[in-house]
Amino acid sequence: MNSDRFPLPTLESLPEDIRDKLLAVQQKAGFVPNVFLKLARRPDEFRAFVGYHDALMLKEGGLTKGEREMIVVATSGANNCLYCVVAHGAILRIYEKNPLIADQLATNWRKAAITPRQHAMLSFAMKVALDSRAVDDHDFRELHAHGFTDEDAWDIAAIAAFFAMSNRLANTVGMMPNPEFHLMGRVPRDRKGG
Amino acid sequence: MNSDRFPLPTLESLPEDIRDKLLAVQQKAGFVPNVFLKLARRPDEFRAFVGYHDALMLKEGGLTKGEREMIVVATSGANNCLYCVVAHGAILRIYEKNPLIADQLATNWRKAAITPRQHAMLSFAMKVALDSRAVDDHDFRELHAHGFTDEDAWDIAAIAAFFAMSNRLANTVGMMPNPEFHLMGRVPRDRKGG
Amino acid sequence: MNSDRFPLPTLESLPEDIRDKLLAVQQKAGFVPNVFLKLARRPDEFRAFVGYHDALMLKEGGLTKGEREMIVVATSGANNCLYCVVAHGAILRIYEKNPLIADQLATNWRKAAITPRQHAMLSFAMKVALDSRAVDDHDFRELHAHGFTDEDAWDIAAIAAFFAMSNRLANTVGMMPNPEFHLMGRVPRDRKGG
Amino acid sequence: MNSDRFPLPTLESLPEDIRDKLLAVQQKAGFVPNVFLKLARRPDEFRAFVGYHDALMLKEGGLTKGEREMIVVATSGANNCLYCVVAHGAILRIYEKNPLIADQLATNWRKAAITPRQHAMLSFAMKVALDSRAVDDHDFRELHAHGFTDEDAWDIAAIAAFFAMSNRLANTVGMMPNPEFHLMGRVPRDRKGG
Amino acid sequence: MNSDRFPLPTLESLPEDIRDKLLAVQQKAGFVPNVFLKLARRPDEFRAFVGYHDALMLKEGGLTKGEREMIVVATSGANNCLYCVVAHGAILRIYEKNPLIADQLATNWRKAAITPRQHAMLSFAMKVALDSRAVDDHDFRELHAHGFTDEDAWDIAAIAAFFAMSNRLANTVGMMPNPEFHLMGRVPRDRKGG
Amino acid sequence: MNSDRFPLPTLESLPEDIRDKLLAVQQKAGFVPNVFLKLARRPDEFRAFVGYHDALMLKEGGLTKGEREMIVVATSGANNCLYCVVAHGAILRIYEKNPLIADQLATNWRKAAITPRQHAMLSFAMKVALDSRAVDDHDFRELHAHGFTDEDAWDIAAIAAFFAMSNRLANTVGMMPNPEFHLMGRVPRDRKGG
Repeated sequence: MNSDRFPLPTLESLPEDIRDKLLAVQQKAGFVPNVFLKLARRPDEFRAFVGYHDALMLKEGGLTKGEREMIVVATSGANNCLYCVVAHGAILRIYEKNPLIADQLATNWRKAAITPRQHAMLSFAMKVALDSRAVDDHDFRELHAHGFTDEDAWDIAAIAAFFAMSNRLANTVGMMPNPEFHLMGRVPRDRKGG
Repeated sequence: MNSDRFPLPTLESLPEDIRDKLLAVQQKAGFVPNVFLKLARRPDEFRAFVGYHDALMLKEGGLTKGEREMIVVATSGANNCLYCVVAHGAILRIYEKNPLIADQLATNWRKAAITPRQHAMLSFAMKVALDSRAVDDHDFRELHAHGFTDEDAWDIAAIAAFFAMSNRLANTVGMMPNPEFHLMGRVPRDRKGG
Repeated sequence: MNSDRFPLPTLESLPEDIRDKLLAVQQKAGFVPNVFLKLARRPDEFRAFVGYHDALMLKEGGLTKGEREMIVVATSGANNCLYCVVAHGAILRIYEKNPLIADQLATNWRKAAITPRQHAMLSFAMKVALDSRAVDDHDFRELHAHGFTDEDAWDIAAIAAFFAMSNRLANTVGMMPNPEFHLMGRVPRDRKGG
Repeated sequence: MNSDRFPLPTLESLPEDIRDKLLAVQQKAGFVPNVFLKLARRPDEFRAFVGYHDALMLKEGGLTKGEREMIVVATSGANNCLYCVVAHGAILRIYEKNPLIADQLATNWRKAAITPRQHAMLSFAMKVALDSRAVDDHDFRELHAHGFTDEDAWDIAAIAAFFAMSNRLANTVGMMPNPEFHLMGRVPRDRKGG
Repeated sequence: MNSDRFPLPTLESLPEDIRDKLLAVQQKAGFVPNVFLKLARRPDEFRAFVGYHDALMLKEGGLTKGEREMIVVATSGANNCLYCVVAHGAILRIYEKNPLIADQLATNWRKAAITPRQHAMLSFAMKVALDSRAVDDHDFRELHAHGFTDEDAWDIAAIAAFFAMSNRLANTVGMMPNPEFHLMGRVPRDRKGG
Repeated sequence: MNSDRFPLPTLESLPEDIRDKLLAVQQKAGFVPNVFLKLARRPDEFRAFVGYHDALMLKEGGLTKGEREMIVVATSGANNCLYCVVAHGAILRIYEKNPLIADQLATNWRKAAITPRQHAMLSFAMKVALDSRAVDDHDFRELHAHGFTDEDAWDIAAIAAFFAMSNRLANTVGMMPNPEFHLMGRVPRDRKGG
């Protein structure tokens, strides 16, 4: 993939609201994730993407933030999206304080060390990601059997659907994960502090 | 699919900006497309969805509005999304003033009566929709050979990706197309005027 | 597809029995469906095709004529056969007096507004069309549970199998549906009479 | 598969033309192939099936009889149709006087000891059998490059399509090949003659 | 496939232990199976391959030798491995004294004349061969329901896995079955004795 | 997956040659990889597996040790084998002194930062892993164009084939990677040394 096809913009060239957003992220994370820089080339799409992402990932609801990231990592693994697997794998490890969970979910979610409820959640998410044409009442009943409501089902489906979009975009425009993501959440705190 | 699982909201219950949007659409089209009512249950997602849609479908660029709808109809056919095939098929017929094109693209885009350039556009869009992991330089070169720029490629990919999301959401929450869509753009004007 | 590869014969050049058949169809429908003209190039295949079609679609039995066309439209959609989806979609709309049913079945039969019995019928037909190697006793028991006999199962399978052939032939020789089919059965009678 | 689901009819119970046909086959082959007995349960379908089969397999044309059977065996292998693989494998071995060819084509046609022209023929036939939606001008040009005409292409496609039907029917109604077929054409004449 | 790509070694050029093995096989079978000659080009791989094969296929355990060959033939058919289907089909016919079983299992194991227990065994083996990522507790419970132990499950899986390797290797290096295999076990003893 | 289904043996219960092998590995790596313990339950299979592995991975030849591990990680990713992706990902990072390469190859080998020669090597390996039935002369010519010999092709194929087996076995018997593997090769030396 020719990495110069969609060159990253300079911070100075960006609209103020987007530049502010990028600087805020940089302050918090220590670096600017490539997805933000890549999408910032197109301000309207950037704003809609970030707005949609936040509406799904940061809202209150029946799923924990870690569980939402589980959906992202498992479905992104199935879509072979390098950027999303590595970047959201890092976030998932941190949320769950579990250095192994992201590799498990990205490689084969069925073998991951998760609860039966989370297994049902991912089973539904994977069907939305890979075979949504066949989703039917039976699938909702399976979710209900594990305590999920219909609104939870919408949340799960919306996250799987949003990353169906995100995975395809990242795969096509050649987005590479920042190297920092690969290690985040893998090393115990005291070791890093060493 | 249990149609009461995600009941449609009443107009009165909606935030003012969303209600205004729905009324404007109703005035223009004569009815409110179900996707707007279904998504209005969740105002933040509604706003992000509409914002993203408009950023991709209404902007200036190297693709005509009709060509953008071709991408929607062809990829939605491949994803078996009833709502998107029927609703966007109607819009496509109207844009292209062609009563046959939507059925052709939704059923088998390869046999549709389109230009070689549009065939190349849809070939790229379908790869983004169905096998984005394998998109590579060769695919971009094919687009260039038909006069598309890299920014056009981003447009094509972004539309295919956005409807990858939209198709999965509509398939999962059981969105049915308004009956009006099935006939729109099929009957010549003077005949309707009878 | 080069439309001149298999040029349509003139009526005068055809054997008398085939010409009579075509004229009879023209009188009834107002036009000669392209499948008849295309196949008439090869009289023996024409006669066998029409004989087989009529033996399956016009006979008495446990399936209504509309239900048989449902099988044709759903399986032809899965095989992406433009000719069969559009032509048989028209016939289905007329038989069922339902302007929406063909688009529903061709795009995603699972979401169509049909009875549970018809859903079971199509589930069996789709397995015959797409994965006949795996048909087993369980599939027959599902049909029995909805009141179908083994002879009905044969009917369903034979129709799905016949159009597996027909779809492949139409896809390969480049058969395009007559424009008339796209609109048939979509406009209420009184409106057309306008 | 419950073998009594579609019991074979007695010869006496059949219409005279079908009984005559079965007796003629028995005289020639030494036994009545199960496909004839199974289909004879439904005289109209029997006549159409046999008429179609003979129109495709016995006519003059650019393909030898052995080459037509190659198409049957290779596509039936891909469709996992036990009856067609075994019965037509026997016919193929006899036509080609080659005891190995049927096992090769049924298991992996790409590794069979055939000519490049036959390889091109089977490549086209397999695309018709497995992915007819994507057949395009390029496929016809490949055939032309090996000396096939467009009418030959129709022959190849029609045979692959007819057995797409036949395979699905045999798979569904549980047709088992007569034991005699397994050995036919495998033993050199003088050895059998002892 | 260029048959000279990996030329067979002469017996004289081989290490003594491998030459002895080949001569022993020749004495017993009357010919040297091509897999032995092809692999003998690489003595270390030959020894490991034969050692692994014998550890799985010749050991004591809950599966008969014929049942182990059933796994080989069914999974090799699914992997389209000509060498393994033909060579192990011969061995299976001899072990089971059944001239039809190999063609049945290689073409469509679901239609073969086997016991329900053998059907469960092959269902598990096919999942290991084709979709091992999804093997779960449910699959083991199905085996237990037919009297298999967990150690039997390991045996089934290990054989399916070993031939997943073997099939890929034979497919890639162009291994053709010896002609003798095609007929072995098909002709009744007394007939051969003529 | 019930982790007690195939309990790990105690070191004392193992044959001496296997115990020695495990102790040697433990000394070198600091822990005993689970694959060794799991397979040690069956000494004959252990010896054949290790012998085959070493014959392919440790021999001299046209591929570097790092390149061999690239084949393992990419094909194991495609087979969703958690154990092999994580364990061999660690070895690959160490061999290549590259903390990012394993995540890239396991998620989407096409986007990895590798040479064109390595890309051709993996393209061949993936075809062997996923579609070996279709490997043909064209694939070998592609390898030759990048400087690989036919013997190199055998090496690539044999490694992909061996891990086709290994992946299926690990997926089925529920092998989990040792936690140590997840971090190995990710942290720069001086950082670890703190």
